[in-house]
Amino acid sequence: MKIIEGSITAPKGFKAAGVHCGIKKKKKDLAIIYCEVPANAAAVFTSNKVKAASILVSQDAIRKGSKIQAIVANSGSANACTGKKGIEDVKETVEFTAKEFGIQKNSVLVASTGKIGMSLPMDKIKQGIKKVVSMLDSNGSSDAALAILTTDKIKKEIAVEIKIDGVPVRIGGIAKGSGMIYPNMATMLCFLTTDILIDRNALKSALKTSVDSSFNLITVDGDRSTNDMVAVLANGLAGNEKVYRNSSAYRIFQQVLSYVCTFLAKMMVKDAEGATKFIEVKVAGAASFAEAKIAAFSIANSNLVKTAMYGEDPNWGRIVSAVGNAPIKLNPNKIDVFFSGIPVVCNNAPVSGGRERAKRLLSNNEIVIFVDLGIGKGKCSVWTSDLTPGYVKINAAYT
Amino acid sequence: MKIIEGSITAPKGFKAAGVHCGIKKKKKDLAIIYCEVPANAAAVFTSNKVKAASILVSQDAIRKGSKIQAIVANSGSANACTGKKGIEDVKETVEFTAKEFGIQKNSVLVASTGKIGMSLPMDKIKQGIKKVVSMLDSNGSSDAALAILTTDKIKKEIAVEIKIDGVPVRIGGIAKGSGMIYPNMATMLCFLTTDILIDRNALKSALKTSVDSSFNLITVDGDRSTNDMVAVLANGLAGNEKVYRNSSAYRIFQQVLSYVCTFLAKMMVKDAEGATKFIEVKVAGAASFAEAKIAAFSIANSNLVKTAMYGEDPNWGRIVSAVGNAPIKLNPNKIDVFFSGIPVVCNNAPVSGGRERAKRLLSNNEIVIFVDLGIGKGKCSVWTSDLTPGYVKINAAYT
Repeated sequence: MKIIEGSITAPKGFKAAGVHCGIKKKKKDLAIIYCEVPANAAAVFTSNKVKAASILVSQDAIRKGSKIQAIVANSGSANACTGKKGIEDVKETVEFTAKEFGIQKNSVLVASTGKIGMSLPMDKIKQGIKKVVSMLDSNGSSDAALAILTTDKIKKEIAVEIKIDGVPVRIGGIAKGSGMIYPNMATMLCFLTTDILIDRNALKSALKTSVDSSFNLITVDGDRSTNDMVAVLANGLAGNEKVYRNSSAYRIFQQVLSYVCTFLAKMMVKDAEGATKFIEVKVAGAASFAEAKIAAFSIANSNLVKTAMYGEDPNWGRIVSAVGNAPIKLNPNKIDVFFSGIPVVCNNAPVSGGRERAKRLLSNNEIVIFVDLGIGKGKCSVWTSDLTPGYVKINAAYT
Repeated sequence: MKIIEGSITAPKGFKAAGVHCGIKKKKKDLAIIYCEVPANAAAVFTSNKVKAASILVSQDAIRKGSKIQAIVANSGSANACTGKKGIEDVKETVEFTAKEFGIQKNSVLVASTGKIGMSLPMDKIKQGIKKVVSMLDSNGSSDAALAILTTDKIKKEIAVEIKIDGVPVRIGGIAKGSGMIYPNMATMLCFLTTDILIDRNALKSALKTSVDSSFNLITVDGDRSTNDMVAVLANGLAGNEKVYRNSSAYRIFQQVLSYVCTFLAKMMVKDAEGATKFIEVKVAGAASFAEAKIAAFSIANSNLVKTAMYGEDPNWGRIVSAVGNAPIKLNPNKIDVFFSGIPVVCNNAPVSGGRERAKRLLSNNEIVIFVDLGIGKGKCSVWTSDLTPGYVKINAAYT
């Protein structure tokens, strides 16, 4: 596997562009990803019961198994909680885009991110779509990556190339964070493109596995949004033999897709609102993977743990307390805690001098909290950021 | 019912004192509540699976039905995650206190709050106990209320008098917050005294009902501590006829005990770490009380909602999103939202001009968020605070 340039336009047949259409004051706010041919598509959507209009419409298209040729994504307005008009606006966006490209209506996905309760300014969106269509090219991935950002500070993109039975196959992706982030698809926007020829069910399965081991293992603030979506388009232009599930080619593709998703997921956490630290929370010795994950998220979602990490304070008591609050099997007397490899708690009692040794390592930008529950073989790692005055400032002044 | 002075020493037969024994640098850190006669006792303890040594020992005394004559409470050290030594230190505290007073060993409760992982300095504790014992009097309640505080800014105390069958009966209470606060007994320390003559099972039942409708409805940061305890001592000196469950006297006592607990619970939220706003989150129209409570806590524990309230930003999208994340029955299209009486969302769509009207009211110190789910008759109110740079600052620099 090698990392290459071009993110979503690196795979054959994909073009992209991003422009400022006027939803935001100045920054780019409208992106289109276009594929020369209809592509197999799979997607996962927010688990929030309050879903944005774009989610409801796009979910419907994916459910029906439509091949997809274009994704229209805007930032600045979430078009959530906008009633019937919200749905009509998405449908109008789909129809307008299909007409502009001369493609099927059911081959367009729409995604939105931004303020809730604000309707899409349809005149601006339509003018924007015309403009993007005229600018689409195979160097437009960076502009598209920029146009989907909200409070993100950096754009998030990657592309990789692998060989499937000797044939080069490419996967590209762009994503946006960076608040209201918590697993269960429900985390953010991510668009993936690939030129692999792959069976639709295999694509769906590979996406689900990849999302479970990447986006579903990150948290910024424990809040799942109304708008989040990860979609992958596979257009089959690479020329490989068609890939089905349970083949070695499938396993290679799935692992590389997981790599791409994990890369983008970690980038989101690193760019989380107000974050100064990237924190990996590893839990081992749990009764099962599921229980390790619950314990890891109980730590990663604790404001008290996250503020302590901001303060570079090796306050392991808050970690042990967060574990004790998790609804899992636990023997308190078997808990061990390490900060970036330094033992601070052994069998639920302090390790002499551990706090002082750990304190020095907490000034690093990347911290590993490792908790061994000592009762089983379940383990899981999740990723989060610290909780800072910057996070409060950004979120106190958002609208 | 009338509110009177003296908090925990207002009921007949109770004395209290609080001193600085040296766990903290300067502030008072050791309190004793003493009762002239052995009192019926009931208590609820943290639901965190990692429990402090004091919780394990005191829980055992309550479980055995021991009558209680003294409560020793220290602040500054939680004596949690301190291994066998932690348990031995609590037992030594119990024995030393019993000997000083010449009372039964099984009539002493111990409570601790403060840093996790720090053992009790037993020499200082013993000297402190001697000192407190010599100072006990019926005016010592304020000193005791001060000595149990940690990051609290104000002491929390109250006393009330009611008549039970014409006989004056008094109830007093002191409490401490103010971080690591979330329901399920698991919230803080609270000590209640009363001179009512009451059956032990009735006392237990009244306490449980009162805690469920007060301390279990508040949240500051969604974290339950290792140390929290609410205990009530009833010494029977008021001279009333003994009260049993399912009597009108019981119902009066229970309601007043709830009043006292709710007063102290709200005081905790108002004094929450870094808080600038007191927020009541009311949910109605849920399928049941239990589902209303889940929805209310989903809102009250959302960092995004809490930062918006700090910023006086009527960002109702975050409220709707938090409701959508709650694992409850929901029809998104029926959600209404009000800020302090001003409608901002009706049937999941914005109310024209609502945001502007609500914005003006959010500069108040007290805010009511009301959400009507529109599908049933379940309702519940919970109380929380805003999330501020002050909270982050306090918790980044705690140890």
